[in-house]
Amino acid sequence: MSFDPAKKYFHKDVTDRERAAFEAGIALGMVIHQFTGIPLRRREDVKILEQVIENAVKAQPFKIDAKVSINIDLGNTDEPYEYTTLKTKNMDVKITVKYGRAVVKAALRHIDELDYNLAYIEEIREEE
Amino acid sequence: MSFDPAKKYFHKDVTDRERAAFEAGIALGMVIHQFTGIPLRRREDVKILEQVIENAVKAQPFKIDAKVSINIDLGNTDEPYEYTTLKTKNMDVKITVKYGRAVVKAALRHIDELDYNLAYIEEIREEE
Amino acid sequence: MSFDPAKKYFHKDVTDRERAAFEAGIALGMVIHQFTGIPLRRREDVKILEQVIENAVKAQPFKIDAKVSINIDLGNTDEPYEYTTLKTKNMDVKITVKYGRAVVKAALRHIDELDYNLAYIEEIREEE
Amino acid sequence: MSFDPAKKYFHKDVTDRERAAFEAGIALGMVIHQFTGIPLRRREDVKILEQVIENAVKAQPFKIDAKVSINIDLGNTDEPYEYTTLKTKNMDVKITVKYGRAVVKAALRHIDELDYNLAYIEEIREEE
Repeated sequence: MSFDPAKKYFHKDVTDRERAAFEAGIALGMVIHQFTGIPLRRREDVKILEQVIENAVKAQPFKIDAKVSINIDLGNTDEPYEYTTLKTKNMDVKITVKYGRAVVKAALRHIDELDYNLAYIEEIREEE
Repeated sequence: MSFDPAKKYFHKDVTDRERAAFEAGIALGMVIHQFTGIPLRRREDVKILEQVIENAVKAQPFKIDAKVSINIDLGNTDEPYEYTTLKTKNMDVKITVKYGRAVVKAALRHIDELDYNLAYIEEIREEE
Repeated sequence: MSFDPAKKYFHKDVTDRERAAFEAGIALGMVIHQFTGIPLRRREDVKILEQVIENAVKAQPFKIDAKVSINIDLGNTDEPYEYTTLKTKNMDVKITVKYGRAVVKAALRHIDELDYNLAYIEEIREEE
Repeated sequence: MSFDPAKKYFHKDVTDRERAAFEAGIALGMVIHQFTGIPLRRREDVKILEQVIENAVKAQPFKIDAKVSINIDLGNTDEPYEYTTLKTKNMDVKITVKYGRAVVKAALRHIDELDYNLAYIEEIREEE
């Protein structure tokens, strides 16, 4: 099978860099909308969730790396209602997409200046 | 703090068994609607996701135990589009709620006869 | 078909009130974990989303009524990053479950005193 | 305010076409992971959900159009367990992103040949 059996569905003018940017967007949209809302109580819950999010990114096509760091205040773990839930602003995510020779590194983090959880492209290039 | 600072918001006629049944329903509704859709490619992804779901259940009030088993066929992990995503029918979940002296054990699994992912109560009792 | 083909999967000691409480919990767990995160920009977006949430509750078994009110500040709709996303604390939900002769009215709303989005039972009774 | 206060967070080499492709990916990742799982029973539920998904896409930055069509078999609406839930394969989505002079039209639909819900770029161009 060719390296991308779905390539023929894309417009022929889409460059590898554009495709890699598109794939990076899909991955970050997935992270935001799939994982926010998960209840968290203990520090161990946080560590293992970071791995699950990384695995989910890497499960999808052309995502070759992912690093997730969750920055969250946990409550007093002995009180029934003092747990928290994952919010997008708690996540610091970096992913790498490789499509053909194009590489895109993209990130998701809360930008205080914008008061916005921004998904953005940190690096885009074509390998030699 | 009393064992349940939210008790006063519930109608006074709600028994401990009824409250435990309510809490069990919340937990299973959470599992279904929070976790389905997560991309999965490798067997290790599945094992760690089971733990994350168990942790999420136990993070919420009065859930004292959770056991999650995901039964899923993974594709050929080398092909880009041959991964899968978690579906409700892949989950076999058992949770235990304890509220006051009431204990409820509830489950979620696909029932072939109904062709339905059924959340149901397997055991309900009041401890001596 | 009997009124509940799934009844045999429940423990025989589960009363109709307990079952109704369980179903109410499932519905509110679904609302919290399915809908939080939806992007919203215009007042019309909010109104129609309230209806979609009500429909989703009523689609599931034994939920006979649902009323959803979303209380949310929308930003300046002309600036690209000034939209918002639905959070659980924005929702004021009331649902009614009827199972056999048992009726449960349950609610979800942010309780300031607890700083918690509480799902609770407002009324539970058996019809004559 | 400039048309994009977040532009400075992106690498300077990112073209408008690449940015538009990235934004299209975010939108389709959001659609897949936010909306699948919603319970549906009546034809009216489906119609209004299509609008909510369109509104959600258009709420986010630089998405200027969205068209969602849900193709789904509803069960016998009188039986308690015969409703359905939205799956990604039921969705036929077309979105348009405009960033600067770049326009991207992207789609999400189930591709039988791949047995995959493919997000892809149908058109990419720079306006005169």
